[in-house]
Amino acid sequence: MRITEIRERTVSLSAPMRNASISFGAMTASAVAVTTDVIRNGKPVIGLSFDSPGRYGHGGLLRERFIPRILEADPEDLLTLDGNNLDPHRVWNVLMRNEKAGGHGERCGAVGLLDCAVWDAVAKIEEKPLWRVLSERYCGLSDQIRVPVYASGGHYRDHDDLAHLHDSISRSRDLGFTKFKIKFGGLPLEDDLRRVETAISAVQSSSDLAIDCNGTWSGSQLEEMAARLSPYQLGWIEEPVHPLDYELSRAFASQYKGPIATGENIFSADDTLNLLRYGGLRPDRDILQMDVSLSYGLVEYLRIVELAEQHGWSRSNCIPHAGFLLAFNVVAGLELGRHETSMSGSFALYLPTTDGYVRPDEAPGVGYERSPIFRAIFSEL
Amino acid sequence: MRITEIRERTVSLSAPMRNASISFGAMTASAVAVTTDVIRNGKPVIGLSFDSPGRYGHGGLLRERFIPRILEADPEDLLTLDGNNLDPHRVWNVLMRNEKAGGHGERCGAVGLLDCAVWDAVAKIEEKPLWRVLSERYCGLSDQIRVPVYASGGHYRDHDDLAHLHDSISRSRDLGFTKFKIKFGGLPLEDDLRRVETAISAVQSSSDLAIDCNGTWSGSQLEEMAARLSPYQLGWIEEPVHPLDYELSRAFASQYKGPIATGENIFSADDTLNLLRYGGLRPDRDILQMDVSLSYGLVEYLRIVELAEQHGWSRSNCIPHAGFLLAFNVVAGLELGRHETSMSGSFALYLPTTDGYVRPDEAPGVGYERSPIFRAIFSEL
Repeated sequence: MRITEIRERTVSLSAPMRNASISFGAMTASAVAVTTDVIRNGKPVIGLSFDSPGRYGHGGLLRERFIPRILEADPEDLLTLDGNNLDPHRVWNVLMRNEKAGGHGERCGAVGLLDCAVWDAVAKIEEKPLWRVLSERYCGLSDQIRVPVYASGGHYRDHDDLAHLHDSISRSRDLGFTKFKIKFGGLPLEDDLRRVETAISAVQSSSDLAIDCNGTWSGSQLEEMAARLSPYQLGWIEEPVHPLDYELSRAFASQYKGPIATGENIFSADDTLNLLRYGGLRPDRDILQMDVSLSYGLVEYLRIVELAEQHGWSRSNCIPHAGFLLAFNVVAGLELGRHETSMSGSFALYLPTTDGYVRPDEAPGVGYERSPIFRAIFSEL
Repeated sequence: MRITEIRERTVSLSAPMRNASISFGAMTASAVAVTTDVIRNGKPVIGLSFDSPGRYGHGGLLRERFIPRILEADPEDLLTLDGNNLDPHRVWNVLMRNEKAGGHGERCGAVGLLDCAVWDAVAKIEEKPLWRVLSERYCGLSDQIRVPVYASGGHYRDHDDLAHLHDSISRSRDLGFTKFKIKFGGLPLEDDLRRVETAISAVQSSSDLAIDCNGTWSGSQLEEMAARLSPYQLGWIEEPVHPLDYELSRAFASQYKGPIATGENIFSADDTLNLLRYGGLRPDRDILQMDVSLSYGLVEYLRIVELAEQHGWSRSNCIPHAGFLLAFNVVAGLELGRHETSMSGSFALYLPTTDGYVRPDEAPGVGYERSPIFRAIFSEL
């Protein structure tokens, strides 16, 4: 078998919203299709993948470097020993040929897209859902898989911000969500606290609410933030400080007793190791949020989970950033803590929710074909 | 004044050589031209830049993200207060609009190319060489600027490796070089030591020779490497361990007394700070080699030098990686320790050398127009 074609299309994710650090007005994402010559149900198997949002599409890097590297490789180098399927670990090694160490940004997203499309193809060739492939290989299959999810959103809006915030949480509750996350740190503190209280008024318990600060706090703010936020007993405080300032992370963890989450801007096992070594995080309560497809894909994410476990973390404290259906399969298959889904915008509706859980189905691969939104995106590839 | 056009061309740097970590068979680099409507000598000023080698070109990222971001910005946002020149610091802020923190790879090279082309234009508009602009702004001009240089090469070759190594050092000596660097770590230790001894036989003193390990040593090798290499009293040992493994860096620094150099795969002030905090390096002897154009350009490199000085380093221990004529201007203008130039391939010949020094001239900008090789590259843009 072999890969016959790889295509990429850059899709606009433009939205009239911002968090504490960036605006999403010009945001893009890449959709990728890896076509094989394996026939299932009378058609060639096509592996699909889609960017996590926030870091822009990866079309340029894919076309100039990583797609040619796969297509020009000896097809044998990409396969399992028996030659009947792609081996994502061998594909990954080909993708990273002649890449220097360090500098984990951008290329990790490009590599991740190809890796995730390969995993989709691998599962389709096995005629299983990806979550089941992962569960069999890395987890030991549970009988009754159901995936805890949470609804993430609460970005700042220029008009009717508080009403919109309350509304979007209420709508997510109506859809079956029980846990929520909103943005924080983009307004003066009193205004931000008013948003937190508005959100709490829409949820069952304040611990059902997490806040995402997008890495914006300075050292001089930490004490006040810890003091003002502690009484709420929130689900977690996400990315309070710059993702690479491990000393600031350590300082906040020493002042704030509740759960801290971070990792969506840490894109490799190398950088994860430094965060675990120096960041002062506490494995018994804090949460690691490395993004699967932005972090060189599932092959590297498996290394990240292993590293976390070696440092005393349980899989339930691994909650990947975003990642749509791909991350959903990974959370289900590796039995991670929770899956993040967006409460704002049409991507919210790709999964049916009951009492905060989603039950995965048995259709093969990641399941993009079963989502109208993703069917539309990939049909134009 | 305004920027009227920005072009990029990806150039092959393919060479039949390898270091301990990668082969250069498919290596590329980007050439960038930023055209302004300012007229000097009857023609529009065009700012030029060229990638440092080793990390591939940045054409895709430039075209899909960073060039449009400059061209779509309000032209006022790119200028000095008096509107007579570009302000590289303001251009940089526009380039990094709506970019999340962390993930310093690839985009830092794309941003760096635009930043460096802007600096070329800034100096041309001032009708001064870039080194003099930098010297006036950040250094206080010395009367007699001469730049210490070294010749870098000694990559592994499949045929006649030792003879080729001796030959290329001898040819570089004939060109006026007195300090040299060769690759190390890509062969069994005894073979690599034979290369070191071959190289030493071609130089004046063993301290004129440095070795570059390209980040390949594991923890179990450190003690043996320190013991076997100490007797040579080499100029420096470069990138002995993985660039982001600060614990391994600390371990080697505790075992090896001589100078250690690292930083070419650290692409930001954020990551530099972590290296300085955790890497165990010694400001009195070790060398920081962050690459100017791969690290978000000169605006960020100025922050990196400032950070190093705050941590007790002198500018003479800052020796940027590669960077061709751009890095040469930066070394001259900021009075850094030394400029790296390649001993293999045609790029070696862009500077006339005497007794290990190069005297910069007074032609405006970076000076690409005075190099036949770069004239050829940029003429096709």
